Amino acid sequence: MCFFCPPKNTNIRISLPAVCFVWQIAMIVLFGVFIRYDAESDIRLWLQLKHTNNITSDIENDFYFRYPSFQDVHVMIFVGFGFLMTFLKRYSFGGVGFNFLIGAFGLQWALLMQGWFHALDPTTGKISIGVEGLINADFCVAASLIAYGALLGKVSPVQLMVVTLFGVTLFAVEEYIILNLLHCRDAGGSMVIHCFGGYYGLTISWILYRPKLHQSKRLNGSVYHSDVFAMIGTLFLWMFWPSFNSAITDHGSGQHRTAINTYIALASSVLTTVAISSASEKRGKLDMVHIQNATLAGGVAMGTAAEFMITPYGALIVGFCTGIISTFGYLFVSPFMEKYLKIQDTCGVHNLHALPGMLGGFIGAIVAAAATEEVYSREGLIETFDFEGEFADRTVGTQGGFQAAGVCVAIAFAVVGGAVVGLILRLPIWGDPADDNCFDDEVYWEVPEDEEGIPPVLEYNNHMTHKHQDISESNFSVEQS
Amino acid sequence: MCFFCPPKNTNIRISLPAVCFVWQIAMIVLFGVFIRYDAESDIRLWLQLKHTNNITSDIENDFYFRYPSFQDVHVMIFVGFGFLMTFLKRYSFGGVGFNFLIGAFGLQWALLMQGWFHALDPTTGKISIGVEGLINADFCVAASLIAYGALLGKVSPVQLMVVTLFGVTLFAVEEYIILNLLHCRDAGGSMVIHCFGGYYGLTISWILYRPKLHQSKRLNGSVYHSDVFAMIGTLFLWMFWPSFNSAITDHGSGQHRTAINTYIALASSVLTTVAISSASEKRGKLDMVHIQNATLAGGVAMGTAAEFMITPYGALIVGFCTGIISTFGYLFVSPFMEKYLKIQDTCGVHNLHALPGMLGGFIGAIVAAAATEEVYSREGLIETFDFEGEFADRTVGTQGGFQAAGVCVAIAFAVVGGAVVGLILRLPIWGDPADDNCFDDEVYWEVPEDEEGIPPVLEYNNHMTHKHQDISESNFSVEQS
Amino acid sequence: MCFFCPPKNTNIRISLPAVCFVWQIAMIVLFGVFIRYDAESDIRLWLQLKHTNNITSDIENDFYFRYPSFQDVHVMIFVGFGFLMTFLKRYSFGGVGFNFLIGAFGLQWALLMQGWFHALDPTTGKISIGVEGLINADFCVAASLIAYGALLGKVSPVQLMVVTLFGVTLFAVEEYIILNLLHCRDAGGSMVIHCFGGYYGLTISWILYRPKLHQSKRLNGSVYHSDVFAMIGTLFLWMFWPSFNSAITDHGSGQHRTAINTYIALASSVLTTVAISSASEKRGKLDMVHIQNATLAGGVAMGTAAEFMITPYGALIVGFCTGIISTFGYLFVSPFMEKYLKIQDTCGVHNLHALPGMLGGFIGAIVAAAATEEVYSREGLIETFDFEGEFADRTVGTQGGFQAAGVCVAIAFAVVGGAVVGLILRLPIWGDPADDNCFDDEVYWEVPEDEEGIPPVLEYNNHMTHKHQDISESNFSVEQS
Repeated sequence: MCFFCPPKNTNIRISLPAVCFVWQIAMIVLFGVFIRYDAESDIRLWLQLKHTNNITSDIENDFYFRYPSFQDVHVMIFVGFGFLMTFLKRYSFGGVGFNFLIGAFGLQWALLMQGWFHALDPTTGKISIGVEGLINADFCVAASLIAYGALLGKVSPVQLMVVTLFGVTLFAVEEYIILNLLHCRDAGGSMVIHCFGGYYGLTISWILYRPKLHQSKRLNGSVYHSDVFAMIGTLFLWMFWPSFNSAITDHGSGQHRTAINTYIALASSVLTTVAISSASEKRGKLDMVHIQNATLAGGVAMGTAAEFMITPYGALIVGFCTGIISTFGYLFVSPFMEKYLKIQDTCGVHNLHALPGMLGGFIGAIVAAAATEEVYSREGLIETFDFEGEFADRTVGTQGGFQAAGVCVAIAFAVVGGAVVGLILRLPIWGDPADDNCFDDEVYWEVPEDEEGIPPVLEYNNHMTHKHQDISESNFSVEQS
Repeated sequence: MCFFCPPKNTNIRISLPAVCFVWQIAMIVLFGVFIRYDAESDIRLWLQLKHTNNITSDIENDFYFRYPSFQDVHVMIFVGFGFLMTFLKRYSFGGVGFNFLIGAFGLQWALLMQGWFHALDPTTGKISIGVEGLINADFCVAASLIAYGALLGKVSPVQLMVVTLFGVTLFAVEEYIILNLLHCRDAGGSMVIHCFGGYYGLTISWILYRPKLHQSKRLNGSVYHSDVFAMIGTLFLWMFWPSFNSAITDHGSGQHRTAINTYIALASSVLTTVAISSASEKRGKLDMVHIQNATLAGGVAMGTAAEFMITPYGALIVGFCTGIISTFGYLFVSPFMEKYLKIQDTCGVHNLHALPGMLGGFIGAIVAAAATEEVYSREGLIETFDFEGEFADRTVGTQGGFQAAGVCVAIAFAVVGGAVVGLILRLPIWGDPADDNCFDDEVYWEVPEDEEGIPPVLEYNNHMTHKHQDISESNFSVEQS
Repeated sequence: MCFFCPPKNTNIRISLPAVCFVWQIAMIVLFGVFIRYDAESDIRLWLQLKHTNNITSDIENDFYFRYPSFQDVHVMIFVGFGFLMTFLKRYSFGGVGFNFLIGAFGLQWALLMQGWFHALDPTTGKISIGVEGLINADFCVAASLIAYGALLGKVSPVQLMVVTLFGVTLFAVEEYIILNLLHCRDAGGSMVIHCFGGYYGLTISWILYRPKLHQSKRLNGSVYHSDVFAMIGTLFLWMFWPSFNSAITDHGSGQHRTAINTYIALASSVLTTVAISSASEKRGKLDMVHIQNATLAGGVAMGTAAEFMITPYGALIVGFCTGIISTFGYLFVSPFMEKYLKIQDTCGVHNLHALPGMLGGFIGAIVAAAATEEVYSREGLIETFDFEGEFADRTVGTQGGFQAAGVCVAIAFAVVGGAVVGLILRLPIWGDPADDNCFDDEVYWEVPEDEEGIPPVLEYNNHMTHKHQDISESNFSVEQS
């Protein structure tokens, strides 16, 4: 604790409820004005659609194409990201709990923002939502959760709400530019989700640089069980990533191929991550940080290219390389960034999201540019790259160029937006923790007294706690005696 | 330990195996007499059905409409409810383990009970089961698991088997009255599952009131890691609730709309729960009990209305209000109930299930009564409310009235049934724990000696273990001295 | 620590990265030469297929029949098996982490091995993969993960890679013999997965027998929280087993019926496991080892018969018996095997996989032999048992005989293959741990210093950490003094 400066005020009793209430009420009003069921979830419109289009079976409803993938994505957002962030010894509540809070807020705001850009009916002024809208909302919020990874333990929940409000807004705009104006394909979001989210978080972290963060060093690490909790997050992300990348790709072979490519790339990442992790320790021991994170890099890097005909061995190569790059990132880039670039990146989102996302964008550009009619067939090229309407004459080469441009747009939005948001977050009104109080759930959570052993009665309890400490310190006494 | 009364006998070595064996053998006999595959899971009948109805594709089998939702529901029942109940520091085995036991028993009994009421072929006297039957069995058992939440830590597994046997039986009868006789709609079970299950458990807990429960106070709370385990349960419940509510709704737009409404309501609950939880602590700190439970209230409260055209903002409002109400319940109603009504509700099922379920039933009644042909279309109204056969002339107003009556039936069954079961459970033959032994896995489980740190060598180990035992048994020594 | 022999060298800094890199590069080359998308995941071929076969809807793509089941299976492989093996107090990293590593490697090798045997196009020399191929790869790797269960804590990750390389190879060959040459049905893999995997692991464990394993006894057990982690594995296995058994069965009623049968059998297992576990302890206390494992035996034993018309009560009986047998296995057979047969089976895979798998094979044989046209219809018999082509004239009796022969083939491959692999693993080059170092993550993982309580200030922290190290290394100091 710093004795020369007044302690920071981390009381959020007014600000957090205020933000939650005001924003939730705003959501209700805006949903009331704008949001309606789409033609596949509105009973009247669906019956009408069935009559008009001679749909004979309810199984043709988009729900049955996408709902299983939606639920997998939903698990990734809340259990995957949430538990991945429980790895700190005393910030598991904050990791999984704030992830839950900002996820739940962000997806509402995302339904609106993405609706305005993508699903607004110009005649009625209403947004139609269906299962694809829910998936897109989850995707949109993923970018802000990635940004949270860079900020974990250093910000207040009120700040996180601000990060998410702006994050979702920026996301919707950059996504509109990349997918609609540049007409890029990015089903799994290498560019729009991972690259954007990663650099957005890193830029905010850079602006919020804490030179005295080492005062919380004792808490900036894991304990045995918190590492096992984090593996829950890792595994659900790893297992369901094929669903993430394929959730909104084309029906039929599109979803099928995307899932296969992602599955293969992820398998490959695991082996190279293990290899580099082992090779970097003097006795070959593995580091849980690498296993928890770098194993996922293959999924990030396949976010754009997985729906293309990258071929199974192409997917393996992508996973191979990104597993190596990501692990090297944890070994060398993160320490470098912290020391020289003043970027404190708690979860290493640079190595798991920002960099592999950027690479994934460029891989997508290359694979798109290399597409041929021989492999895709003419009809297949049109379906895969959506060469229709005003884009009917676009060549695959041009498409590749636009894909690459998309990466730059994502980074630009992330850095500029992140800088602005970072500056806003430096206002002294958000209740963020002091430098010696970071990574500590005590600040924002009622934490139970932690006695694994069970003290019997209350008076005794106090007594006991005392005793208990004696014992847990008995390495002292035993050795001293 | 009480020195003036004989210690309770918690030996269940005869009773638990006896109950398990006898009931399981009864299940085998009854399944043999009654249960058969339905037309979509029997190879002969399915081939026949395809020929008769000109079904060209196997994808029309109900399996593909419902199986993904079924698996989500299954996860909610066993991981969701199970892990939500691991929050106590020393009752995690009992929380997840007994949930597993009574879930596995209950679903078998539910297949029979529900079958007799809903799927009995009058000509053959056989019950047909398919994937919808499995979902309904999971639903049925959910009510008993909710009741377990009120009793957690205070009853023996044999008592839980009794609670489940009667719980499933009562459920099947009240469900038959509500869904068939009153012709209510209640796809997600606000009334039949949550309201019934909650009040059933509360009534039993009231009958089993333990005035000296404070003797186990030291164990009636969480430790850091047990709270993280409970978040696994919370999140899987929260994420999969859209599947819960939509699992047995109408194919097509019905399932689609129900999932959307539930997703939206749940998101809204999270924000108001956080707001109230923070506002109620002097420094704005969040309470894990609220985050683990009240965030789910939106899903409970949408159990009836989610399949109606409640509109997205209507769903937001429901989540908004029930998040507040549920958190207030944890803050004020539970302590009040314990002190003045003599109801000890370990998990606060009143606030998460009973009350939001009751509200959900009334919300459903209102939304049903407000339905119009303009919104649903004539055909849509008939499909949504099943206005066919003897109910062809029912108006939405009448329907609303019957929906409200359904809530009362559910509560009546819960209270009367719970009182009877509670009295049965007071017989001194069930092996329940003493007042100072509640919330303790030691009673019914072989618990490993808990040494997180690993004593290095064996002599030292014994030394250490010895010391450790001294302490853990020192409640005796201290009280005696 | 042994003073008379040089300490074993557990340094895997060269060998593990080398194996990972070389094998991963080999995978890339072999995938490049052999593996292609199948007709339902290749855009050109899928469009062609739709035109040729008049497929009007993308929902007919096999992806929509199998992908939800695939993801459930995927969860079983990585979270189910992985977390089930976290039960040891200090081997949770190794349990879930090495499971992850060998799973990710094994599924790549499985795609190739199974492809060569089942999906090689003789004209092009290419293997076509789709979602069914992914499921089969997960199945194939499951056998090696089961074998890992017998070896848990006693082998190095390099050895596990060897176990998996040979395990997958042997699996593909025995599967080809059983499914193609003998024309058995074994959708859920009682024979090919569980029986083979179990005996394969047991045989390896027998060859690697460690007479002095008691030196690691202090670590060969659970702590409270590690048992709760293991329940995550148990429950995901238990819940998703219906998907495991039905994942590759026939579309339509086949998948539907298989899921129902497995669900029912598993429920029954839970009750008899609880009964025997309780009856075997003097106060009726339950043992977590039984609950974590034997409850799953019903799923294993239904691996072959679940797709047949075994009837719901038949499924209950199977679960009833195998729950009992498996629990008895943990109580009596495992200690017997360790003492007299010199087989050290860490997770008791004999009782959960080998024996129930073998029984499941024979149950399948009996149910197949008892099939009648009356129950299945002629067309149904042909569809269920695939009596087509050269097998068009096979009777159900003959089929039963071949099914039984399949069990023997699986065991023969497991024992002979396991013996060879065991001998290879005895070479002193694999970096396996010493007898007093088994079940210890310290050997292959960088384990965080474990201080659950957080020492308040920094000087103290250093002091504490220093002392703590003294203790954890005091096996040296104590023994030396």
